[in-house]
Amino acid sequence: MTIQDIQRQLDYRQIDINKVGIKGIKYPIQVLDRTSGVQHTIGDFNMYVSLPHRFKGTHMSRFVEVLNRYHNKIGINIFPTILREIRQHLEAEAAHLEITFPYFIDKEAPVTRARSKMVYTCTFIGSLKGDDLDFRVQVQVPVTSLCPCSKAISDDGAHNQRSTVTVTFSFDKFVWLEEMIHLIEDTASCDIYSLLKRPDEKYVTEHAYANPMFVEDLVREIACRLLNDRNIIWFTVEAENMESIHNHSAYAYVEKYL
Amino acid sequence: MTIQDIQRQLDYRQIDINKVGIKGIKYPIQVLDRTSGVQHTIGDFNMYVSLPHRFKGTHMSRFVEVLNRYHNKIGINIFPTILREIRQHLEAEAAHLEITFPYFIDKEAPVTRARSKMVYTCTFIGSLKGDDLDFRVQVQVPVTSLCPCSKAISDDGAHNQRSTVTVTFSFDKFVWLEEMIHLIEDTASCDIYSLLKRPDEKYVTEHAYANPMFVEDLVREIACRLLNDRNIIWFTVEAENMESIHNHSAYAYVEKYL
Amino acid sequence: MTIQDIQRQLDYRQIDINKVGIKGIKYPIQVLDRTSGVQHTIGDFNMYVSLPHRFKGTHMSRFVEVLNRYHNKIGINIFPTILREIRQHLEAEAAHLEITFPYFIDKEAPVTRARSKMVYTCTFIGSLKGDDLDFRVQVQVPVTSLCPCSKAISDDGAHNQRSTVTVTFSFDKFVWLEEMIHLIEDTASCDIYSLLKRPDEKYVTEHAYANPMFVEDLVREIACRLLNDRNIIWFTVEAENMESIHNHSAYAYVEKYL
Amino acid sequence: MTIQDIQRQLDYRQIDINKVGIKGIKYPIQVLDRTSGVQHTIGDFNMYVSLPHRFKGTHMSRFVEVLNRYHNKIGINIFPTILREIRQHLEAEAAHLEITFPYFIDKEAPVTRARSKMVYTCTFIGSLKGDDLDFRVQVQVPVTSLCPCSKAISDDGAHNQRSTVTVTFSFDKFVWLEEMIHLIEDTASCDIYSLLKRPDEKYVTEHAYANPMFVEDLVREIACRLLNDRNIIWFTVEAENMESIHNHSAYAYVEKYL
Repeated sequence: MTIQDIQRQLDYRQIDINKVGIKGIKYPIQVLDRTSGVQHTIGDFNMYVSLPHRFKGTHMSRFVEVLNRYHNKIGINIFPTILREIRQHLEAEAAHLEITFPYFIDKEAPVTRARSKMVYTCTFIGSLKGDDLDFRVQVQVPVTSLCPCSKAISDDGAHNQRSTVTVTFSFDKFVWLEEMIHLIEDTASCDIYSLLKRPDEKYVTEHAYANPMFVEDLVREIACRLLNDRNIIWFTVEAENMESIHNHSAYAYVEKYL
Repeated sequence: MTIQDIQRQLDYRQIDINKVGIKGIKYPIQVLDRTSGVQHTIGDFNMYVSLPHRFKGTHMSRFVEVLNRYHNKIGINIFPTILREIRQHLEAEAAHLEITFPYFIDKEAPVTRARSKMVYTCTFIGSLKGDDLDFRVQVQVPVTSLCPCSKAISDDGAHNQRSTVTVTFSFDKFVWLEEMIHLIEDTASCDIYSLLKRPDEKYVTEHAYANPMFVEDLVREIACRLLNDRNIIWFTVEAENMESIHNHSAYAYVEKYL
Repeated sequence: MTIQDIQRQLDYRQIDINKVGIKGIKYPIQVLDRTSGVQHTIGDFNMYVSLPHRFKGTHMSRFVEVLNRYHNKIGINIFPTILREIRQHLEAEAAHLEITFPYFIDKEAPVTRARSKMVYTCTFIGSLKGDDLDFRVQVQVPVTSLCPCSKAISDDGAHNQRSTVTVTFSFDKFVWLEEMIHLIEDTASCDIYSLLKRPDEKYVTEHAYANPMFVEDLVREIACRLLNDRNIIWFTVEAENMESIHNHSAYAYVEKYL
Repeated sequence: MTIQDIQRQLDYRQIDINKVGIKGIKYPIQVLDRTSGVQHTIGDFNMYVSLPHRFKGTHMSRFVEVLNRYHNKIGINIFPTILREIRQHLEAEAAHLEITFPYFIDKEAPVTRARSKMVYTCTFIGSLKGDDLDFRVQVQVPVTSLCPCSKAISDDGAHNQRSTVTVTFSFDKFVWLEEMIHLIEDTASCDIYSLLKRPDEKYVTEHAYANPMFVEDLVREIACRLLNDRNIIWFTVEAENMESIHNHSAYAYVEKYL
């Protein structure tokens, strides 16, 4: 007995679907790592194709078959290959793939050099339509921000807080995640560590106090550096400060138009 | 003694900021309601302005001052007024405002007519640049979807699940939230209720079984209806099925291009 | 034709169920408010009963029927009435009810007296077994904490951050939510506001710097005050500091044993 | 110059702190895996000690030092060693450790035997006070549940949905995560897969329809099996059904008292 293929049936509503597929599937992945060659982590995948108006449905199980083949070799350079494989295996015109994953970097504390691991949320976002490949990388980096206004008007101290800086970018030649993360950390009032001993805590406190930045300064400083980097074709920079004096965030956003 | 105004200082980095402001502030609001005139609920606000490159910072407290004036009269018709007020009070060229809120509608169970309240997540999104007003409404509607493939190939039953349909749209003349929510519920395999007695449960089970829909069908049916409504200028339709047979979602997305 | 009542059938597995019911239903509520008499907000409800081993299932729709009757008069004093109603309407021996809701309080900025609304997450938790009523209130209060170690060892500044203090308590005589929230805010390095003008920002910066507190100090100070209040029968105090120098929290927990 | 040790200072408030430490730190871990020996995943750690009333603070950085030593050998058998190490390194009387991590298991589709990976959220929870070790394991398992009432009263079909079953347990002799997960999956209306081809979809649809279970049945069936297993000393079983016909969950909870 043959099992019916309902998805293959014809559809008469004349509506092309921009994206159809699976969302939020978690899979162990291996990602290219500057220091150790490869890093084991966990990816959260969205995998879509376009669906022409004449077909009733797509074959969702095929996305997982592609995932099975590629989850152990995720990286910037292989992304176009995976997109082509999705498009071919799903018999579609366009393919879309987003992978979000925690990425760990070994850091040394600024004074004692004590080592620990910091986590960053990274995303690869790609689309392939015809020969057009659109590929973007996003990194989310927690940093310290210290308020210049608070410092200037107060006799002592200045309010400071954890901020999340999110940079999304496209580029010409390969960029290591580590490079973009470092650029962002280097710009903030101070960067953040998992392990700080007392001499380190003295350092980060004083370093942040010496480098006050509004949420506006954070996005501008980073945008300046990215504008000066010819390898970065397009970018957006967002910063969100989880204000220590409010129960809401301060937020800024800059976009480079293509 | 005067307190310094650091935000007013000049900035020399030549970077315009697209959006700067406050994010994630919760405030009680009153929203226009078709049945009872006004509904008390709680808004989650993002409020931004553009910042020209010559100014160092914006004055964040002024957003909350505008919020204080308008939180008790939120609605589609007053949105342009609030945007103008933000722009003027913050001395900016462009203003952006997003309000997300739970919205309750009284529903009657399909057979017993037992009454209960259903919650929908709604968002108003507006931008004002020069004389250009861009205003969009988003509604998120939970529904039941039942899989046509599962029904066709199985001797008994069919897998079904809760789905979330999200429609974002702009329009010409005023649209009630209730109208768009009703259109979406009417399209699904079955709509969802807070209170169902046994005769109602029999009804919704059989109704869903009689109306199987892929995630593709959900977005197409809704897109068809919206394309036929001349009042709807632009829209996107998304559907996400929290599959009962997988630990991930099936997803589809259609956009009407302007 | 009668519709079968499957839930009423007998069960032979000899397993009493401690709690069975509905979880995560959102409903508009009205809560007793010290200033304005009543406050409109939104409750997230968990409603359970115990189920003796001989019955196959409970009747879930009856929880929503009770909700319909009481959602517009939620408060500490009426809690026992609602619990009795659940127990009776569900024909159960024990009833459990948890309601979590955002609660807004008008605050004045410390110097300019500018007014704004602050949100606090509150929960009422009650159980009724036989004649035994167990009732607890929980409040979550965001405050500023400033690190004493960082202040002591640094030449300038001190790292500070938003902290969440959570107090859960049972009591003898009625306690206003406002009273417990005020006690917590009064204890912290500084309390938090939605609206601060520059003179206020100077004040909160200097006030926090003058009152450094470890996460340990936060829970101890609050525990001291609660131990001295004869009306508070039992409590737990938790504090979580969203460290500005780390990507994780510092946490402390104290419990008064009965 | 010596840097002051503020944490070491004496405290006079006479309040012992039950738990103080770090919360929500993410670290790559390696966990014992029945099939492949070891599995790379990511742990979310809470690490606490008790603090006697005479000390002002604990030394938070030492938790991360312990984490650095053990993150690559996490498992049930090594838990007591890590707890002892925390207690000793932090000079405390009691140590508490909670690690939550996604755990992947290879599954074969029921008919086609197509292979894919399923993710389960697991937690190890341990406390060491004096010579008293308390150790618990928690597994969260997504399954399909199909409503017996809906099936009995409807002419066709039956509503079904994804459910999450959470079992927390302590035991005498070593238990593989895979064993407890399998026991739960085996009990449900049907278990869940990342990859199902059409013959598999037919199977899971029919299998769920043939095995209708209330949320009450889910917790009772699992409780029965655990009560019959002499190796399981204590347990709680929770089930939450993300109802396809409601916007809230059905929930049940059973606890074995010691």
